Amino acid sequence: MTKQQALQTLLDKIEADQALNLAGALVHWDAATTGVPEKSLPKRSAATGWLYGEQFRRFISPDTLEAIETLESVSGELTEYERIMVREYGREYRKLKAVPPDEYEAFCSLTAESENVWETAREKCDFNMMQPYYEKIIDYQRRLCDWYGYEKHPYDALLDDYEKGATVEMLDSFFDALRQKIVPLLKKITEHGNQPKEITGLFDISKQRELAPWLADFTGFDRKRGKIGEVEHPFCTTITRNDVRITTKYHEDSLLSSIYSVIHECGHAIYEQNMDENKDVYGIADDASMGVHESQSRLYENIIGRSLAFAEVLLPKLHQKFDYFKNWDADMLYRAVNIAKPSLIRIEADELTYSLHVMVRYELEKDLITGKIKVADLPRLWDDKYEEFIGLRPSNLAEGVLQDVHWSGGLVGYFPSYAIGTAYGAQMINTIKKSIDIDAAVRKEDLSPVTSWLKDNIHTHGKVYSPDELLRRSTGEPFNPMYYANYLEEKFTGLYL
Amino acid sequence: MTKQQALQTLLDKIEADQALNLAGALVHWDAATTGVPEKSLPKRSAATGWLYGEQFRRFISPDTLEAIETLESVSGELTEYERIMVREYGREYRKLKAVPPDEYEAFCSLTAESENVWETAREKCDFNMMQPYYEKIIDYQRRLCDWYGYEKHPYDALLDDYEKGATVEMLDSFFDALRQKIVPLLKKITEHGNQPKEITGLFDISKQRELAPWLADFTGFDRKRGKIGEVEHPFCTTITRNDVRITTKYHEDSLLSSIYSVIHECGHAIYEQNMDENKDVYGIADDASMGVHESQSRLYENIIGRSLAFAEVLLPKLHQKFDYFKNWDADMLYRAVNIAKPSLIRIEADELTYSLHVMVRYELEKDLITGKIKVADLPRLWDDKYEEFIGLRPSNLAEGVLQDVHWSGGLVGYFPSYAIGTAYGAQMINTIKKSIDIDAAVRKEDLSPVTSWLKDNIHTHGKVYSPDELLRRSTGEPFNPMYYANYLEEKFTGLYL
Repeated sequence: MTKQQALQTLLDKIEADQALNLAGALVHWDAATTGVPEKSLPKRSAATGWLYGEQFRRFISPDTLEAIETLESVSGELTEYERIMVREYGREYRKLKAVPPDEYEAFCSLTAESENVWETAREKCDFNMMQPYYEKIIDYQRRLCDWYGYEKHPYDALLDDYEKGATVEMLDSFFDALRQKIVPLLKKITEHGNQPKEITGLFDISKQRELAPWLADFTGFDRKRGKIGEVEHPFCTTITRNDVRITTKYHEDSLLSSIYSVIHECGHAIYEQNMDENKDVYGIADDASMGVHESQSRLYENIIGRSLAFAEVLLPKLHQKFDYFKNWDADMLYRAVNIAKPSLIRIEADELTYSLHVMVRYELEKDLITGKIKVADLPRLWDDKYEEFIGLRPSNLAEGVLQDVHWSGGLVGYFPSYAIGTAYGAQMINTIKKSIDIDAAVRKEDLSPVTSWLKDNIHTHGKVYSPDELLRRSTGEPFNPMYYANYLEEKFTGLYL
Repeated sequence: MTKQQALQTLLDKIEADQALNLAGALVHWDAATTGVPEKSLPKRSAATGWLYGEQFRRFISPDTLEAIETLESVSGELTEYERIMVREYGREYRKLKAVPPDEYEAFCSLTAESENVWETAREKCDFNMMQPYYEKIIDYQRRLCDWYGYEKHPYDALLDDYEKGATVEMLDSFFDALRQKIVPLLKKITEHGNQPKEITGLFDISKQRELAPWLADFTGFDRKRGKIGEVEHPFCTTITRNDVRITTKYHEDSLLSSIYSVIHECGHAIYEQNMDENKDVYGIADDASMGVHESQSRLYENIIGRSLAFAEVLLPKLHQKFDYFKNWDADMLYRAVNIAKPSLIRIEADELTYSLHVMVRYELEKDLITGKIKVADLPRLWDDKYEEFIGLRPSNLAEGVLQDVHWSGGLVGYFPSYAIGTAYGAQMINTIKKSIDIDAAVRKEDLSPVTSWLKDNIHTHGKVYSPDELLRRSTGEPFNPMYYANYLEEKFTGLYL
């Protein structure tokens, strides 16, 4: 294979992959926004399965490796983007090829079945139903660590799948920092804090719907290159760089739910919209990691969207639409959108406690992988950790160890990205603040200086840099969890104590 | 290649083709119902192009022919559906392979360009712009006749692409029958007819929208296995057998437009929904021809939807929604939905004159293919034929020879299916009437006896029978245009004279 043939081989594969991605994204969008007649499901699933399977078959075919090796041998002759394409493709290919195909196939069948069983197990609060599945999944993940290989800790091999370069060493110090600051802070707030007035009552959905475009425009989401849909479970999906769609769901009894889901998804969407189109053809206009993606959504949602400055610009919009707020001031609103309290369900957790929920999962996963704990002990250990970190003990398994679908789907090493991304965001904001008055930008309803910084320093680079390199280049130092810990401490001390 | 390998080869290709079809259908649905941001078009077109290209590449690869030939050699050992699959695949494959690949590619580029030029040419009423394109397209089509081969008339080769088994001989006698009945009838109506009261004014779109589900249910479209969308240009698309979607557009100033577009698209959709799912895996649960598809839409739209019995059930619905109809009776409504008059634009033509518009195109196409007329003469000949058949002469090319996109897109031999399908429908209805009181079924708002007949005799068979075989089996005789000619004569004489 010549260099030219090798390049063409990869570029062709990327073109096919992107076409199949576009199809997959539209199939998903259609299912979520239009709905699928029940009787259409089997045929539609088969077709979707074929489309995904085709992506996989094209990727693992032997000419992929030949092309990668050919290009690696002439690395010096490649352009920057070509080199990164080869690096990323090679990395993915070798990870996938490290897994014996029959093991991989068996694992896919196992998790498909396991996800279904989980639905029932959660409903019935029956851990025995799940235990054999979890055991097989953990067993596979332990072998996966060996197949992938690792330097220090086997769990590092799994982390790398979701957060390139993340290690147990790094996460231990990250969660230690959080534990030291947040666990006692939460305890203090729970015992002595002044609980703010909550937003209650019903809010007309058509008026909520009118708010969404303003929120999207405020964040910098380009609605001419995307749109806002309505679905049961909000998400963001990329059809093309210039057609990025976010979704939300409006609840009459929860005004904040759609407001913050729109801002959150816009954070994801802005990242997708601002990636450099010139990198697309090389398949490297994609997120640097799941954590970096999450850093953007949470930075917009929490650090900006739950600031006092934002409460000041949001309140007049609420005054226009809802009589409910006629006696509210910005400070009351600021407090109401930042209510922090111990809770049991991760996906409903507030900004302060969210990472503690992740910490429970991280510690359990790590110990499962080393064999320090057994699957059978999970329910008890889960409850103990919730009591220790959050101060509450689940009263049943559905609000305890069976609440997340992730493990039944075979995702181990995935949870930490949720927390780490949030911390990346805090570190970025700390740097942005040195040159930009973010609160002033919010008050002027013009976030463009912030978004431009993020575009130039994070978004545009796609997969060129690893998360750690991105942080070093943009903030001048490696990942430092203290920015996040300090941010939370300062904000919630100010709010509550 | 063994028989088993050959079977698997074709079945795999069909599975891939159907998955790519589902993707293509959803891409199309999304563009029409959600819209595509302008900047997203290039990347989206490239991806769509790849998806269609992949269908083509998989179809024409050499193992297709090997599989077909292997299976043809053991034809006696195949099941019925396998045999039909081989017949249909072989037919398509050999037609496609008959065309030199470089000629085919050049023609695809030509028509892509030509369609764009046509937009401008029509706007500017400039035939000179189109003439060189039309000449090249007709030249290609003439060679195509030779590549495909034919027995009696070269145009037969083109017809067969859209209407399997149709010939000039058959179409000449079809259009002769129409000409003899309809041309003088239209003249009489224009000169002496009692013109009915037209429906004018504005009709609230939200009320029109409420009518659509009733219309769909009335026809027998299963909304649990499909849905109704809103678009600029109505169409019907099949995601799966159990997810067939129709679309319409509501015009405030044209109540009839959406009513009849819904019924029309429901006719297409019912055909798609009622095909036998067991034939799907063999790729033969598909329409028998474009004409048969059109027979279903026009049968529901015109023969049933513009009957007096339907006016009787529609009127109470209109009374409920629109004050406008308070002084109308069913007979007035029946007359208003059947207004027939000479007109210049095919897609706006009424039931009586529609086939005359098609006849103009058929005669011109046939003579272009034999070389009897030249492209340069089209504008004059077009106008002459309109004057002769319809009694009107276009005042410009946009309402004359440049009105249709078809020729610029390389579609020659396509138009006749529109008319012939309508005639198939009349022949089917003639048979149905012998055992079922259609008007009584309409009045009871229960078309199920009619739809069941169509399902059992037409829909379920998919591609098993050719259009002619379908007619022979279901009506007991070959295609006979007199049912259609007589139906039109009787109906419009009754209405007007």
